[in-house]
Amino acid sequence: MIKVGIVGGTGYTGSELLRLLALHPQVELQAITSRGEVGQAVADMFPALRGRVNIAFSEPSFESLKDCDVVFFATPHGVAMAQSAELVNAGIRVVDLGADFRLKNTVEFEKWYGMPHSEPALLDQACYGLVEAARNELKNAKLVGLAGCYPTAVQLALKPLLTQGMPLIDESSIVADCKSGVSGAGRKAAVSSLFSEASENFKAYGVSGHRHLPEIEQGLQMMSGRKTSITFTPHLVPMVRGILATVYVQLNEAGQKLDIQDLYEKHYADEYFVDVMPKGSMPETKHVRGSNFARIALHRPQGRNTMVILAVIDNLVKGAAGQAVQAMNVMFDLPEHMGLEQLPLAP
Amino acid sequence: MIKVGIVGGTGYTGSELLRLLALHPQVELQAITSRGEVGQAVADMFPALRGRVNIAFSEPSFESLKDCDVVFFATPHGVAMAQSAELVNAGIRVVDLGADFRLKNTVEFEKWYGMPHSEPALLDQACYGLVEAARNELKNAKLVGLAGCYPTAVQLALKPLLTQGMPLIDESSIVADCKSGVSGAGRKAAVSSLFSEASENFKAYGVSGHRHLPEIEQGLQMMSGRKTSITFTPHLVPMVRGILATVYVQLNEAGQKLDIQDLYEKHYADEYFVDVMPKGSMPETKHVRGSNFARIALHRPQGRNTMVILAVIDNLVKGAAGQAVQAMNVMFDLPEHMGLEQLPLAP
Amino acid sequence: MIKVGIVGGTGYTGSELLRLLALHPQVELQAITSRGEVGQAVADMFPALRGRVNIAFSEPSFESLKDCDVVFFATPHGVAMAQSAELVNAGIRVVDLGADFRLKNTVEFEKWYGMPHSEPALLDQACYGLVEAARNELKNAKLVGLAGCYPTAVQLALKPLLTQGMPLIDESSIVADCKSGVSGAGRKAAVSSLFSEASENFKAYGVSGHRHLPEIEQGLQMMSGRKTSITFTPHLVPMVRGILATVYVQLNEAGQKLDIQDLYEKHYADEYFVDVMPKGSMPETKHVRGSNFARIALHRPQGRNTMVILAVIDNLVKGAAGQAVQAMNVMFDLPEHMGLEQLPLAP
Amino acid sequence: MIKVGIVGGTGYTGSELLRLLALHPQVELQAITSRGEVGQAVADMFPALRGRVNIAFSEPSFESLKDCDVVFFATPHGVAMAQSAELVNAGIRVVDLGADFRLKNTVEFEKWYGMPHSEPALLDQACYGLVEAARNELKNAKLVGLAGCYPTAVQLALKPLLTQGMPLIDESSIVADCKSGVSGAGRKAAVSSLFSEASENFKAYGVSGHRHLPEIEQGLQMMSGRKTSITFTPHLVPMVRGILATVYVQLNEAGQKLDIQDLYEKHYADEYFVDVMPKGSMPETKHVRGSNFARIALHRPQGRNTMVILAVIDNLVKGAAGQAVQAMNVMFDLPEHMGLEQLPLAP
Repeated sequence: MIKVGIVGGTGYTGSELLRLLALHPQVELQAITSRGEVGQAVADMFPALRGRVNIAFSEPSFESLKDCDVVFFATPHGVAMAQSAELVNAGIRVVDLGADFRLKNTVEFEKWYGMPHSEPALLDQACYGLVEAARNELKNAKLVGLAGCYPTAVQLALKPLLTQGMPLIDESSIVADCKSGVSGAGRKAAVSSLFSEASENFKAYGVSGHRHLPEIEQGLQMMSGRKTSITFTPHLVPMVRGILATVYVQLNEAGQKLDIQDLYEKHYADEYFVDVMPKGSMPETKHVRGSNFARIALHRPQGRNTMVILAVIDNLVKGAAGQAVQAMNVMFDLPEHMGLEQLPLAP
Repeated sequence: MIKVGIVGGTGYTGSELLRLLALHPQVELQAITSRGEVGQAVADMFPALRGRVNIAFSEPSFESLKDCDVVFFATPHGVAMAQSAELVNAGIRVVDLGADFRLKNTVEFEKWYGMPHSEPALLDQACYGLVEAARNELKNAKLVGLAGCYPTAVQLALKPLLTQGMPLIDESSIVADCKSGVSGAGRKAAVSSLFSEASENFKAYGVSGHRHLPEIEQGLQMMSGRKTSITFTPHLVPMVRGILATVYVQLNEAGQKLDIQDLYEKHYADEYFVDVMPKGSMPETKHVRGSNFARIALHRPQGRNTMVILAVIDNLVKGAAGQAVQAMNVMFDLPEHMGLEQLPLAP
Repeated sequence: MIKVGIVGGTGYTGSELLRLLALHPQVELQAITSRGEVGQAVADMFPALRGRVNIAFSEPSFESLKDCDVVFFATPHGVAMAQSAELVNAGIRVVDLGADFRLKNTVEFEKWYGMPHSEPALLDQACYGLVEAARNELKNAKLVGLAGCYPTAVQLALKPLLTQGMPLIDESSIVADCKSGVSGAGRKAAVSSLFSEASENFKAYGVSGHRHLPEIEQGLQMMSGRKTSITFTPHLVPMVRGILATVYVQLNEAGQKLDIQDLYEKHYADEYFVDVMPKGSMPETKHVRGSNFARIALHRPQGRNTMVILAVIDNLVKGAAGQAVQAMNVMFDLPEHMGLEQLPLAP
Repeated sequence: MIKVGIVGGTGYTGSELLRLLALHPQVELQAITSRGEVGQAVADMFPALRGRVNIAFSEPSFESLKDCDVVFFATPHGVAMAQSAELVNAGIRVVDLGADFRLKNTVEFEKWYGMPHSEPALLDQACYGLVEAARNELKNAKLVGLAGCYPTAVQLALKPLLTQGMPLIDESSIVADCKSGVSGAGRKAAVSSLFSEASENFKAYGVSGHRHLPEIEQGLQMMSGRKTSITFTPHLVPMVRGILATVYVQLNEAGQKLDIQDLYEKHYADEYFVDVMPKGSMPETKHVRGSNFARIALHRPQGRNTMVILAVIDNLVKGAAGQAVQAMNVMFDLPEHMGLEQLPLAP
């Protein structure tokens, strides 16, 4: 049994980790910490877990976590950075669901997150955790900076096009028009996330610059080995869970000659969690809700050279807690889908 | 392995059966029938099942189902009535998720469903499938008329009060003010179920008379052995899944003397799926969504003699497909929660 | 032109007042105050008002309001109590949309609101502002404690039954099962009002005791002259606006003999804003959304003696800002529906 | 008073016309026709109009409409084409809210709508009704093919860029990623528009080709006089009303030198219904809901050459019924905003 700790379990990614780990046959939940809730039963805060998760929040200290094999951080940025070194040095593997170990460039980190990076040495060791792109590296990773939710959707949508050795698209003019459910904003009390604000409403946000932009560009460049430029526009959808990325690329001459549908199907043929749908399909966020699946479909409207790639994930599962468990399975040499077999909840 | 057939798998209860059965370790899905969709892959209609359910719809004939151990009917009323006899006679056990075998009185059936009951003999054999109330009878049942969604919630809310040998409440003036998500109306194209009609809207319906009224009154009388009269008002909530029943009872002198919270906790102590919450709790439909759990809480406002009982279920799971699987587990002597361990999906 | 001031215009009742008053032909918006937002343009906070409301928030001082003919308080309880005396003494009429001047009994006020009432003398002068019940008193009222949202719906639902000189129902066992959209919780950042918590969810709240209970009981007793006892259960609906009250009453012998539909139609025949729908109708919250109308329908299920009364209002309009404007129209001898003619926004 | 007739008033654009026209001070509603509902009171179908619209549906014949000054068609395509000639010949002005008179090219019409155009001569006379672009032509128009909902949003978003005499952007690679509420699909019973399908869900549709594509390209070419090519992807948002168009353009050298914000502000300075928001704003659909306003904001992320233009409208108002009334006001020489002053309903 893998002994698991969770730091910061009072948000949506934390409770989602609990939902998944509670039924994982190889996991023993050792500790869940929260500064503000020490002693409170987890199931009192999340009644959906009543009768199945019988643990209370404990102090966010090394002491609480020292017997764990792996610790998940489901915390605001800055926290994992401050606490990971001690754990890693003690031989405990760390998966950060936050942003502290995603951007390799500390200057970029400081620019986008407004604080200096205090652990550049740790950062160098960190594996960027988009599982489908980092499987081998993950096996021995001590520290994982799990991919963000939007970056997971956009990178899975583009990966087959950017890993063919040569450019197939104009890599300087990609557009990723992304839409997310409100749970992406977390469980923090904020007026803009109120039901009365978000319901029956649709808007873009972060258009001039969103923290996932440098992460996406970094990830795409890791895939292609070339500089890639993307316009990334997130939008807020009046639903709780789900991300749809609508990605627009201009096929170049090489790309126009290829059967892109075939390329995607072959590329993802062995991926348990990535479903390339038949040409012309319309993936819906509900078709992955509550599950760790990603579904992708390709369109080439009017036979023109702009290709439209649609990708859906559940932001809390494949975009966070599910991918974290998937990464853990790889790290501990378990079947990758263990504990992640649930089918999407639709309708 | 239990060989399972589903008749009428194109609605929400049918797809929910598929979601649950696909992961049930002792089930082999043998056939799913639909007159209109013969030959179509199930996963084409329900992309959420892609890659996990690899079966196509077949003809709704005895031939398609003759190798099954059990057949679920997820059909409009009238269908199970017409097709069950042949199956039962062939030794195949039948669970009807529809209304054909719920009301014991054929006059009542005809009054509320507008058609005569063609199988009164079968009806006599049928077990009314509220699992918590019919467990022993279920073990050998050949034919089950599964409890409806509202009736499941209301009966679970009242069962401890009605099974104590003597009246604890005024059994002639119970009020059950019930609220359901829109999936209760099924997957039928109807203007009143359109998103633009139901969203951002709330209304009562069937106030003057709803088919679940006689079923509830029958069920309560089976419990108490006494005539019971209830005012039942269903409402439509702008959400997909979930039922909350708010039940008002007038405690009589005997009832006022009892510790009702204690009565409920003891009554349901051994029930895996029924959670009596601490006094004063507010169960939310999201706390059971996607799961087979029911949660119940008790209130006695201002210390007066009107008690308010709150009960929540997922109408498609405990109110339909989940309870059907639970019944099957009992019928085939499997652990009652096999295949039903999923935790609620919240948020 | 009536010079109007608003104290506390940063919440939903405040912005709703602005929406209505901006188009009122006899109103000149003089000042809107907010301690936290002094100097900010109102339309920056509420972009829906851009180009039509060109005023900025000012200090919440007497100075800001001294030229007004009437001041609306759209503030948390306690604020109007503290600031009204100075205004009333200066001859400025005050309409409090909050709770400070609703309960006549200061002991009850302290019990339910957790603070002593500092202005019992003012309270004695205050008119309880359910316009349909207080029209004459309103004409000369200096201070109005506007009816709350739930109390407006419940009292309109019951008024014809309680104003006939003799009891027509069992006045000790009324049940009001009420459902409200989330905007009723205001624009305050709170986890329980987050989209991800409230969407796809349904729950009761305040079951053991809600501040609107004593207000409703007081209002009903003012109508009938007799003590009335009610069980009031509020629920939260995943929609922004709207209240549906489902009220259950036991007709007594006198009540059973009457044509209650006829009683309601005659009682409300001259009310512009109260629509008694044909017998058997199902009023929907969307049928009044954005408007000042209330719609009421009557049912007597199975011909039994329990009558079900359904009433819908928009909680922000007839339940708050709209009724405030309606009251103002009465107070200033304008046509009661002036500025309130908008039709409901449906779908 | 203008005598108005409506053909096909049982859908959402029809009921929205009624909502607006009922309060228009210069309109007298003469007739509303519906083959299926002859004799039924309009307010029975749309209870939101009870007490304010007292007219019944009549036969869809010339006889019903012959006394009108103007007739609105709120019908599926094909109907206006079949019935307009007789009206126009009788001197009755026609505004078609459907698609029959939008596309100037009958070959394109047949390709996208699957039926030949039976009235090419009428089509030649028809004015394409995007009011802000066609005001002068509208004044004497006998027949108006009102702009579609998506085309209104996209064209308003691009108009200032395409009417400057020279190209400012790459006009061959525009991307319009558009999102609409479900009411855009109309009041037709269809599984894909059910609440249980559309709620808590997000998807693209019509990606490979949508009927609004040729309309948008035609409209843009009418503005610029040059061929324009656009990739148009509509998406379905789980809300009732509202469209957000996110439009991506590549600024060319001329465009990069201009102050585009200033260009937009000046271009729309005199438009009552078009609000150019301050640079960096995020227009929300709720900020125009129920109103005839469009709001537009400009972004240039990271200072790169891709500009992002955001535009919001209410699809049933500015995208249909409201723009129809606006067009009528222009046609009959009334103030353009008469009857259209309502402020958006937010929250």
